[in-house]
Amino acid sequence: MNLAKYVYLFSEGNRDMRNLLGGKGANLAEMTNAGLPVPQGFTVTTEACTRYYGDGREIAKEIQDEIFANMSKLEEITGKRFGDKKNPLLVSVRSGARASMPGMMDTILNLGLNDEVVAGFAAKTGNERFAYDSYRRFIQMFSDVVMEQPKSAYEKIIDAMKEAKGVQLDTELTAEDLKDLVVKFKALYKSAKGEDFPAQPVTQLIEAVRAVFRSWDNPRANTYRRMNEIPYDWGTAVNIQSMVFGNSGESSGTGVAFTRNPATGEKALFGEYLINAQGEDVVAGIRTPVPISHLRDQMPQVYEEFSAIASRLEKHYKDMQDMEFTIEDGKLYMLQTRNGKRTAASALKIAVDLVDEGMITEREAVLRVEPKQLDSLLHPQFDPDALAAAPAIGKGLAASPGAAAGQVVFTAEDAAKWDAGGKKVILTRLETSPEDIEGMAVAQGILTARGGMTSHAAVVARGMGTCCVSGVTELTVDYENKCFTLGGKVYHEGDFISLDGGTGNVYAGAIPTVEAAISGDFGRLMAWADAARKLEVYANADTPKDAKQAVDFGCEGIGLCRTEHMFFETDRIKAVREMIVAQDAQSRKTALAKLLPYQQGDFEGIYEAMGARPVIIRYLDPPLHEFLPHEDADIADIAADLGITAARLRAVVDSLHEFNPMMGHRGVRLSVSFPEIAEMQTTAVITAALNVSKKLGISITPQIMIPLVGDVKEFIYVKKFVVKTAEKLIKQAGSNMRFKIGTMIEVPRAALTADEIAAEADFFSFGTNDLTQMTFGFSRDDAAKFLDDYYEKKIFESDPFAHLDQKGVGQLVELAVTQGRGANPDLHIGICGEHGGDPSSVEFCHAARLDYVSCSPYRVPIARLAAAQAAIRSPEDKK
Amino acid sequence: MNLAKYVYLFSEGNRDMRNLLGGKGANLAEMTNAGLPVPQGFTVTTEACTRYYGDGREIAKEIQDEIFANMSKLEEITGKRFGDKKNPLLVSVRSGARASMPGMMDTILNLGLNDEVVAGFAAKTGNERFAYDSYRRFIQMFSDVVMEQPKSAYEKIIDAMKEAKGVQLDTELTAEDLKDLVVKFKALYKSAKGEDFPAQPVTQLIEAVRAVFRSWDNPRANTYRRMNEIPYDWGTAVNIQSMVFGNSGESSGTGVAFTRNPATGEKALFGEYLINAQGEDVVAGIRTPVPISHLRDQMPQVYEEFSAIASRLEKHYKDMQDMEFTIEDGKLYMLQTRNGKRTAASALKIAVDLVDEGMITEREAVLRVEPKQLDSLLHPQFDPDALAAAPAIGKGLAASPGAAAGQVVFTAEDAAKWDAGGKKVILTRLETSPEDIEGMAVAQGILTARGGMTSHAAVVARGMGTCCVSGVTELTVDYENKCFTLGGKVYHEGDFISLDGGTGNVYAGAIPTVEAAISGDFGRLMAWADAARKLEVYANADTPKDAKQAVDFGCEGIGLCRTEHMFFETDRIKAVREMIVAQDAQSRKTALAKLLPYQQGDFEGIYEAMGARPVIIRYLDPPLHEFLPHEDADIADIAADLGITAARLRAVVDSLHEFNPMMGHRGVRLSVSFPEIAEMQTTAVITAALNVSKKLGISITPQIMIPLVGDVKEFIYVKKFVVKTAEKLIKQAGSNMRFKIGTMIEVPRAALTADEIAAEADFFSFGTNDLTQMTFGFSRDDAAKFLDDYYEKKIFESDPFAHLDQKGVGQLVELAVTQGRGANPDLHIGICGEHGGDPSSVEFCHAARLDYVSCSPYRVPIARLAAAQAAIRSPEDKK
Repeated sequence: MNLAKYVYLFSEGNRDMRNLLGGKGANLAEMTNAGLPVPQGFTVTTEACTRYYGDGREIAKEIQDEIFANMSKLEEITGKRFGDKKNPLLVSVRSGARASMPGMMDTILNLGLNDEVVAGFAAKTGNERFAYDSYRRFIQMFSDVVMEQPKSAYEKIIDAMKEAKGVQLDTELTAEDLKDLVVKFKALYKSAKGEDFPAQPVTQLIEAVRAVFRSWDNPRANTYRRMNEIPYDWGTAVNIQSMVFGNSGESSGTGVAFTRNPATGEKALFGEYLINAQGEDVVAGIRTPVPISHLRDQMPQVYEEFSAIASRLEKHYKDMQDMEFTIEDGKLYMLQTRNGKRTAASALKIAVDLVDEGMITEREAVLRVEPKQLDSLLHPQFDPDALAAAPAIGKGLAASPGAAAGQVVFTAEDAAKWDAGGKKVILTRLETSPEDIEGMAVAQGILTARGGMTSHAAVVARGMGTCCVSGVTELTVDYENKCFTLGGKVYHEGDFISLDGGTGNVYAGAIPTVEAAISGDFGRLMAWADAARKLEVYANADTPKDAKQAVDFGCEGIGLCRTEHMFFETDRIKAVREMIVAQDAQSRKTALAKLLPYQQGDFEGIYEAMGARPVIIRYLDPPLHEFLPHEDADIADIAADLGITAARLRAVVDSLHEFNPMMGHRGVRLSVSFPEIAEMQTTAVITAALNVSKKLGISITPQIMIPLVGDVKEFIYVKKFVVKTAEKLIKQAGSNMRFKIGTMIEVPRAALTADEIAAEADFFSFGTNDLTQMTFGFSRDDAAKFLDDYYEKKIFESDPFAHLDQKGVGQLVELAVTQGRGANPDLHIGICGEHGGDPSSVEFCHAARLDYVSCSPYRVPIARLAAAQAAIRSPEDKK
Repeated sequence: MNLAKYVYLFSEGNRDMRNLLGGKGANLAEMTNAGLPVPQGFTVTTEACTRYYGDGREIAKEIQDEIFANMSKLEEITGKRFGDKKNPLLVSVRSGARASMPGMMDTILNLGLNDEVVAGFAAKTGNERFAYDSYRRFIQMFSDVVMEQPKSAYEKIIDAMKEAKGVQLDTELTAEDLKDLVVKFKALYKSAKGEDFPAQPVTQLIEAVRAVFRSWDNPRANTYRRMNEIPYDWGTAVNIQSMVFGNSGESSGTGVAFTRNPATGEKALFGEYLINAQGEDVVAGIRTPVPISHLRDQMPQVYEEFSAIASRLEKHYKDMQDMEFTIEDGKLYMLQTRNGKRTAASALKIAVDLVDEGMITEREAVLRVEPKQLDSLLHPQFDPDALAAAPAIGKGLAASPGAAAGQVVFTAEDAAKWDAGGKKVILTRLETSPEDIEGMAVAQGILTARGGMTSHAAVVARGMGTCCVSGVTELTVDYENKCFTLGGKVYHEGDFISLDGGTGNVYAGAIPTVEAAISGDFGRLMAWADAARKLEVYANADTPKDAKQAVDFGCEGIGLCRTEHMFFETDRIKAVREMIVAQDAQSRKTALAKLLPYQQGDFEGIYEAMGARPVIIRYLDPPLHEFLPHEDADIADIAADLGITAARLRAVVDSLHEFNPMMGHRGVRLSVSFPEIAEMQTTAVITAALNVSKKLGISITPQIMIPLVGDVKEFIYVKKFVVKTAEKLIKQAGSNMRFKIGTMIEVPRAALTADEIAAEADFFSFGTNDLTQMTFGFSRDDAAKFLDDYYEKKIFESDPFAHLDQKGVGQLVELAVTQGRGANPDLHIGICGEHGGDPSSVEFCHAARLDYVSCSPYRVPIARLAAAQAAIRSPEDKK
C-alpha cells in the first residue's frame, strides 16, 4: 500500500504546507482558497524530488501516474484537454522550493504544444501569430531547460530574422515569421540532438518535471544554497499550472509588482509590466518594461482589481508581497505571491512601518530583517562633497543601493580572479545571468546596460546587499576588447569607476566614501532588537579607531584585542625582532622593555575609546617566525639593522621553521617558554588601565586573555606571572583596581578539560576559528583547495569556517559551557571567532547559553539583530 | 589545631604506609616491627615534602619542631645525644620516594659532626682515623649535596694527598692525613662559600632535609620520573637514621645484596660488599667490591645471619629483595630492603620460579614483570656464528644483558647528539653518574671501566633494558682525545664496537644480530598472560616480513597495514608520480592501473603470512606532495623521467604545497577528491583476498579502513566506491566472500560524531597519534622544541605522544566508544596509534572497553602482558 501522496491540486493545499509544496505551491493554494483569480493546477511535492534523487534520478512510475491522474482532474477543472487539437490545455512547469531562490531553477511555459496542437490552438484563439509565438517560445525554453541546448543558438536565429525583416522587436515579427522560426528551431533541435523535437505532450511533461528536479542540483542553485544556508535535502516542488497568455495581443500582458518599494520600503505599489509578453520577458530584462503605474491609465479596471488584491495579500501575509500576474485579453490572473525580497533599507522601513500601522508587534518586526542584509547599510557611502564635485558619466536604474568604487571587469571569472588578487571590481555586463552569481558576489558593484528593477542583476544584487545600477541604456559593451563606451568616452578593463546604487548615477574614477551611521528606522529597529536580546555583543578591535567604530555600531565591549597586530608597526617591529633573536632572558627583557611604552600607549588609546566598557586583551599569539623575514635579501638587511650577522639571523629563522605552524610554538606556549613576554604585556595593560582610570575618573577592570590553552597547568603557569606583575603595579599605584584573567577555548582539549580550567579562569572566549581547524583537522589556509570537492560532492553544504559546525564544534562548545559553569558559576563565556558575526552561529551561541559574542565592528549590528532574533525565536523566550 | 603528623618513628610505621613514608621508610618500619637489626630513626613524610614546595621551598616551623621532637626520641632510643661531645648521635639523611628511584636523589652520612664532636667521637671509639674519615666524608657530602659545591674539587685534594703520601687507596691514609684533609676541606668550603662550614648539628640537619626535598626537583630526578611515569606531586620522604659505621675498621664493612640474581633470576644470594667502607663506596663504583659469597669465609656468623634475614624478607614480601646492610665491628645492621630491580630475563625467571615454589599464583606472576622490560628480550641478539668468529678485545662484568653494536662516544651529550643524527652509539665511560642518564637512555650499550654489578651504570642499564658491560678494569679512557685503549689497541670516537651484556665480552667492530624468540619462562608467563587478558592484540605491519615477525610474537591480526609505504618502493614510485601529475581522472586511472599489480602482490604476501587472521588495510593517507621531489635538481630528473617539463612538475609541487600539511589534503580527503584511488586499492585488496583464500583454502574477510574521517558523509561517499568495486569483483569471482569497511577515529570531530559514523562502519580504530595532535593542537614534528619547557616547568610530566592523555584524548576515546556502540552494538573497536604498545595506554584501552590494541611487532608481547595486567587489576576482573 502506498501511503505517500506526491501530488496536490492547488485546492488541496494551503500556506502552511510550504515544506511539502514549496513556497510557490503553498501560496498558489492559499490564493486559490481565498478565491483569487489563479489559473488552476497542481503541485508535485518536494518529497517527490527527494524520492527522484533517492531513486538514482528517476521519477518513479507511481509518481508519474499520480501526475497524470491530476492532469486529468485539471482537464476537468479547465474544460480543456492536454494534447487536444481543438481545445488544448497548455501548462507551465515551474520550480518552487521551500525557500525562495529567484532565478536559480528552471521554468517551462506553453507546454503541450506540437505541430498539430498549435494549429488547433491558432484556430481556437483566432490568433495565429500568438499561437506560433507561444510555440516558438516553448521549443526554445524546452530545448534550453530540458535538453540543455544553449539558448543563444536560438536567439541568433531570432536576431537574424529580425535583421532580415528590418524590425527591432520580437513583437514586430508576423505570424508567418514565427511559423518560419518554429521550423528553423525544430531543425536546429534535430541537428543538435539527432532526433526530432518531442511531439508527445505526455513526454514533454515528464521531461519537464525531471528537468526541474534536476535543476535543484545545478551549480548556480548549489552556490545560491551555500550562500543562503539552504539545505540540499529540502528539494524543490514542481508546479504545473494551466497557462494564461500575456502574449495573446495588445490587451494582454504580464508583470511583477511589490506592495511596497523593495529598494526604499515606500508604501506604494511598485512594479513593471510588458504588454503582449510572457513572464520571462520581464524577468530576463530583454525588453525594458514600463512602471506598474502606467497600467492605471492603460487598463484602469485591471489596475484597480490588481491593486485591491495586492492590498488584501499584504494584509493576509502581514508582509510586503512580491506578485506575478498575467493579463489575458483584459482579464487579470495571479501567478504567484510571496514575501518580497528587499534591500536592507527597505526591510527596515517596512518593518517599522508595519509596526506603526499596527500590523505587527515590535518583536515581530525584529524578525523581519535579515541580519546579514544590514551589512549593506554599514559600509561606507560616498563622501557627499566628493560626490557633489563628481560629474556623472551616465545614469541607469537605482537597482540596489549603496556606493561602490572599483576597477572595471567584464566577466564573472575576471571578477573572481581580480578579487582574489585583492582588487575591488565593478562587474560590467550587458545583462547578468545566473551563471554570473559568483562574480557578482565578490564585486563591489554591478553595472548593466539592459534590464529593469526586477531584472536578474537587480534582484540578485539586492539580495546580496551589493550596489547595482541596471538598465543604463546608453552603455555599449565590447566584451571582445574589454571596454565600454558611456557618455562618448571609452573605459577599459582596470579603469576605476564609481556607482551610486541610491541614484543610479555612474561616475568616472573612484569617489571617496564616508562611514555609515545607525539612525532613523535602523535605530528604532535596533533598539527593539536590543530590548529583546540576551547575548551581549562585543567587538574584535585592535586599535582605538576600530574601537570607536565598534562603539558607534553599538558594541558593549571589546571581546578580542589582538596585541600582535601592534607588533608589526614599523616603529616597533625592530624591538620585536631583537626580542626574538635574543639568546637569553636578559637580552630578551631588554628588547621587551623597548616595546613596553608602545604597547602601553596602544592600550591607553583603546581604554580611552572604550571608557569603562570591558576590554579583553589577548596576549601574543602567532609563532615568532611571522615577525622575521624569510628571503635572503631581507635577512641581510634586517640582520644589519639588528647588528647581527645574516648567518645568525638565518639560523634563528631556520630554527623557528615549523612543519605545521598552526599547531606549533604559539599562543600560551610562547608565554610558557618566555614568561617575560607575558610580564611585559601585563605591565603595559595594567599601567595603561591605571593611567586611563585616573585620567577619565572611571574604574577600568582590565581583562587579560591567554590564548591556546590546552591544559590548566599552562594557564596556571602563565597566570602566576601575570598576577604577580599586576598586583605589584596596582599596589605601587596605591590603587584597588581589580583585573580578570581568562583564556581562549580554541584547542579541543581545552573544551574537554573546561572544568579544570574554569576553576582557575574568570572567563572563557571560544576561538572558533582554531577550534574548527583542530576539531575537523582542517588547516584553514589549505582546506580551500579541497573544500570545493566537498561542496560538489554534497559532503559539506557550507563552509565550517563561515557557519559554526554545530554537531561537532558546537558539541565541544556546549560541553565546555556546561563543565565550565559547573566548576565556576561566575564564569563569563563568549565567542570571538569569526562566527561571532554570523547570524546562524549567533543563534547557536544564544542556545548554548553564552554570555556574549564578539565580532568585527561592521558585524556588531548584525550580531545584535541576530541575537535578538535568536532570543525571540527560542522557546523559553517566546512571549 | 594541627592535625597533620609529618614525622614518624620507624616503630610507628609499616609497609602499607609507603605513600606517606616512601618505600625506604615503610620498609625500615616493617623491618623494625619484625625485630630485625635496624638502626633506629624516623621518617619525615612525603606530605612534608609537598608542603615544602607549597610553602615556596620553605620547611615550616611546625615541621622543624616535629623533626627535633623526634630527634629527642631517637636520642632516648639510642642513648646518645645529637651534637654531644662525649657520646654523639650521628645520623644519615636519605631520600625515599614512594617508587624506588635509585641514585636519583641525595644522601648525607655522618651528620652531626663538627670539630669538637669529632674529637669526642674519636675518644669514645678509640679510633681517631675512623672518626676523621667519617668527618671528612661528611664535609665532602654536605658540601656537594647541601651546598651544591662540585664533588670533584674535594676529590682532587684527596688525590693530591694520596700522591704526596705515595698510596693507592683512601684506606691507606692515616688519621693525621685525614685530619689534614678536614682542614683543607673546610678551607675550600670557606673560600668557595665565603663562610665557615656550619658547625651546628641542628643547622646541618635542617639543611640536609631541605637538600633532600630539593633534590626531588633536580634535573636527573625529573628525567627519571618522566621515563618511569612517576608523578611529580608524589614528593619524597626523608629518612633520618642513627649511623652505624662500616668504615670503623677491618671488622666493619658495608654491602648490597639481592635474594636472587637480578640479571638471571637464579635463586642464590647475590651481591657485593666492601670492608672498612661506607655505603656510597659500593654504589659509586669507586672501589671494586667483592662478591657476597666471600663473606661466608670472612665473617661466617654475619653471613649466616644475613642469609637468614634475606630469606625471611623474601618470604615476607613474596618477591626478590634488594637489601643494604652494614657491619659495624662484627655486628650486622639492615639499612634497607625493597623489591629488587631486575632484568627482564630475571623478572621472568623469578616470577615463574615463585609460582613453582608455591609462593604466588599465576595471575600474581603476570603482575611481577614490567611489560616494557620485555623489550630487551625482543630485540636481536648476536648471530651465534658471527659471535663465535669474533675475538673479544676485553671482558668486564655482564651488568645488563642484551647485545649491542654501535659507534663509540664518550659523553652523554655526544650520545644524545649522535642518536639524534640517526647513529647507534656505545656510551663509554670510566664510570657513569646520574647526570649521564639521558645519554644512557639513547645508547645501544654502555661500557664502563669501573664499578660492579650494583654500580650506577649496571643498575640504571638493567632498569632501562639496555645492554651494559661494567668494570672492564683494563680499559683506559682518554676523554680529552676521545679514545680508549683496550687489549693494547686504541679505539677512537666513531669506531664500531660490540658488547655482549650476557657474557661481559667486548668486541671490535659491529657484530650482526639475530631475532629473539619467545620460549621457556617467557613462553610460560605469556601463556598465563594470554589466559588473563581480555583485549585482543594486533600488530601494525606493512610487509609480509613484519607480519611474520608479529605472528611469531603472538599477534592475533594486523590492526594497521599502511598502504602508502608500499608506494615509495623504487619500482612503483614512478607510477605514483604519474598518478599525481595526471591532469584528469582518465590519466590518473591509467597510472593507477600500473600500481594495481604491485599493491595486489603486496596484499597477497601479507594475507599469506597472516592466513585467516584479520588484516585491516588502511587506504592512502599522506598528502601527495610527500611522493614528489622538492629540490630543483631532483625535479628536473624526475620530470624528464615522467616525460613532462620541469616547470610543469614544479607547478604541481607548488600547487600541492601546504601551510599545515598535517591538517591538509590527506586521508579520506584524497579519496573524496580522487575516488579512483580508493577503487584501485579496493581492487587490489579484494583480488588479493580472493586469490589467497583460494590458494590456501581459507576464508579471508578483508577489512578496509578509511583514514581521517571527520564527518560520516565523507565515509559514505568513499564507502560507496569501495562497496561497488568490491561487490563486482566478488560476484565476478563467483565467491561469497564477505568484507568489512571501517574507519580511523583520529580527528576530534570523528569522536564527537561517532554515533553517526558507527551506523555506517563495521569497525573503529583510534589513530591516537593524530588524535593527540589535534586534541592538543600540537604538531608532533614541532612540539619537541617546546615540550622540554613543558617538562621543565612541570606542565607536563610525560610526552602525550608516548603515553595516552587520558583526561583529554581519553575522554574522546570513551565518548566515541559509548556513542559508537550505542549506534552499532557489533562495532569492533581498537587502537592503532603508537600508544597501542605503551603499557599505561593499554591499561586505559582495557578500561575503555576496547576490543583490541594494535602496535609494532616488537611491542606485541609487551601489549599482551600489559593487557593481562590491566585485566587482572581491573575491579570487575578480580578473582
